[in-house]
Amino acid sequence: MIKQRLDEYRTPIEEVLQNCLQEEGVPGELLESMSYSLQAGGKRIRPVLCLAWAELLGQKREKVLWFCTSLELIHTYSLIHDDLPAMDNDDLRRGKPSNHIRFGEAAAILAGDGLLTRAFSMMLQTDLSPGAVLQAAAQISRAAGPAGMVGGQVLDMVLTGNNKKELEDLKEMHSLKTGAMIKSSCLAGAILAGGSQDDLLRAGEYGASLGLAFQVADDILDITGDQTKLGKPVGSDQARDKLTYPALLGLDESRTLGLEMVARAVRAIEPYSGDRADFLKDLARYIMDRVE
Amino acid sequence: MIKQRLDEYRTPIEEVLQNCLQEEGVPGELLESMSYSLQAGGKRIRPVLCLAWAELLGQKREKVLWFCTSLELIHTYSLIHDDLPAMDNDDLRRGKPSNHIRFGEAAAILAGDGLLTRAFSMMLQTDLSPGAVLQAAAQISRAAGPAGMVGGQVLDMVLTGNNKKELEDLKEMHSLKTGAMIKSSCLAGAILAGGSQDDLLRAGEYGASLGLAFQVADDILDITGDQTKLGKPVGSDQARDKLTYPALLGLDESRTLGLEMVARAVRAIEPYSGDRADFLKDLARYIMDRVE
Repeated sequence: MIKQRLDEYRTPIEEVLQNCLQEEGVPGELLESMSYSLQAGGKRIRPVLCLAWAELLGQKREKVLWFCTSLELIHTYSLIHDDLPAMDNDDLRRGKPSNHIRFGEAAAILAGDGLLTRAFSMMLQTDLSPGAVLQAAAQISRAAGPAGMVGGQVLDMVLTGNNKKELEDLKEMHSLKTGAMIKSSCLAGAILAGGSQDDLLRAGEYGASLGLAFQVADDILDITGDQTKLGKPVGSDQARDKLTYPALLGLDESRTLGLEMVARAVRAIEPYSGDRADFLKDLARYIMDRVE
Repeated sequence: MIKQRLDEYRTPIEEVLQNCLQEEGVPGELLESMSYSLQAGGKRIRPVLCLAWAELLGQKREKVLWFCTSLELIHTYSLIHDDLPAMDNDDLRRGKPSNHIRFGEAAAILAGDGLLTRAFSMMLQTDLSPGAVLQAAAQISRAAGPAGMVGGQVLDMVLTGNNKKELEDLKEMHSLKTGAMIKSSCLAGAILAGGSQDDLLRAGEYGASLGLAFQVADDILDITGDQTKLGKPVGSDQARDKLTYPALLGLDESRTLGLEMVARAVRAIEPYSGDRADFLKDLARYIMDRVE
């Protein structure tokens, strides 16, 4: 049921992903390496969240679809760079050779740079009110930046292999590395719909809780999951001495934390009703259902 | 004389460069590696051009200074990534160890990513009219993206070591790799000042001509220059079999091409008068004066 609803959001996003890199003047080699990673599948959760919040607050889908979809380009760029030999050195991504394995390191660095810059040009070309677009794009740029995702990746590298691991470090790292972008995806959707200050607070609360639940679930699945579904070897975090929730809290307490976060996300949606509100609640619950 | 005038523009830009990375939540390691490259000196030509065009068309300096300065963050990110071992593998930049030599490859990739994203958050926080900011930032994002700077770097890698070198390839590569951003720096300044369509055409013509002159001059200096001034070994392009103007046209014809471009840039300023117009003309002339 939730999977069908997810597909209703994902289908138009996939269509934009098919077309959005086709600009005049892009060298064929670059287009190929960017497309390879962008079309390797994935949950498309950031665009879905942005779109679902925009529609929940009454915005029309076609007005925000390109903006929402651009968030997947930012996510894909971060995966390509994280997989590089100098970083996590991952040969596999979603069951396929990583970008640098397929195209070489230089091409992979540039594919990431290309996706990141293209994401901004997609965000900034829109027929919505310039003030709202500016506010939403500024939110995304901060979340993707040094005080967000890039900073989180730096903390991840610093913490990996470090013996003094604290829960606070882990929360800080994830809140920057994945939390900030997931929260901002919801916030950007609310901003693009002209949401009130209260709407924005709820979108932020929902997104922050969902982001944490999502990371906890991913960490659990790295231990208990199925390699074919994960698209990468089970236990790869442990093998690399990565700081994870199960490593710090154990599996049971990690599950409890994940479920608490799902409950908090669901509560943030309580003031809304209807089909679109139900989708956002079900989506939150689905994250921890995958773990069971 | 031109150096004094340049410093009048550069001084406020350097002040913003000193402060602009200080955001709450940025890990210390990341701040250090980003600052290292950002404060390694450089001509600051992109911010200077943006500011000079905005002021030429009547905009106030304090309103556009952060936007203009952000262009130097984009330039610095591109240098850090270009120097990486997988790309040009340059150990020296402006006479100092390259970012990856000083901080390691992972830190250098992330310093680049951090500077690029921070540049956008700087561009998008402004008290100018949202429509103008949106248009200017969209221009910059396209120029920095797959159909601009990133695409140009891909072409550079493809062409290096390739035997079938044509002048058209070289022009295409440079027009993407450096030309697009220099042209767009001028255009963004004109847009932020609320320039007319004619103003924008002239800013584009000036910037495109200046960008080409700049590249020709750089290529010539790589052969005839002084290592201490260049901050890198003389002849490094040749050693690497890089496609350059002197390699294709010879030194004399390259000089002629550079001077033609300077003349074209100066002509684009003819409709304007006063101190600020004189500065832009002198700046264009100065580029080829360095070569003599």
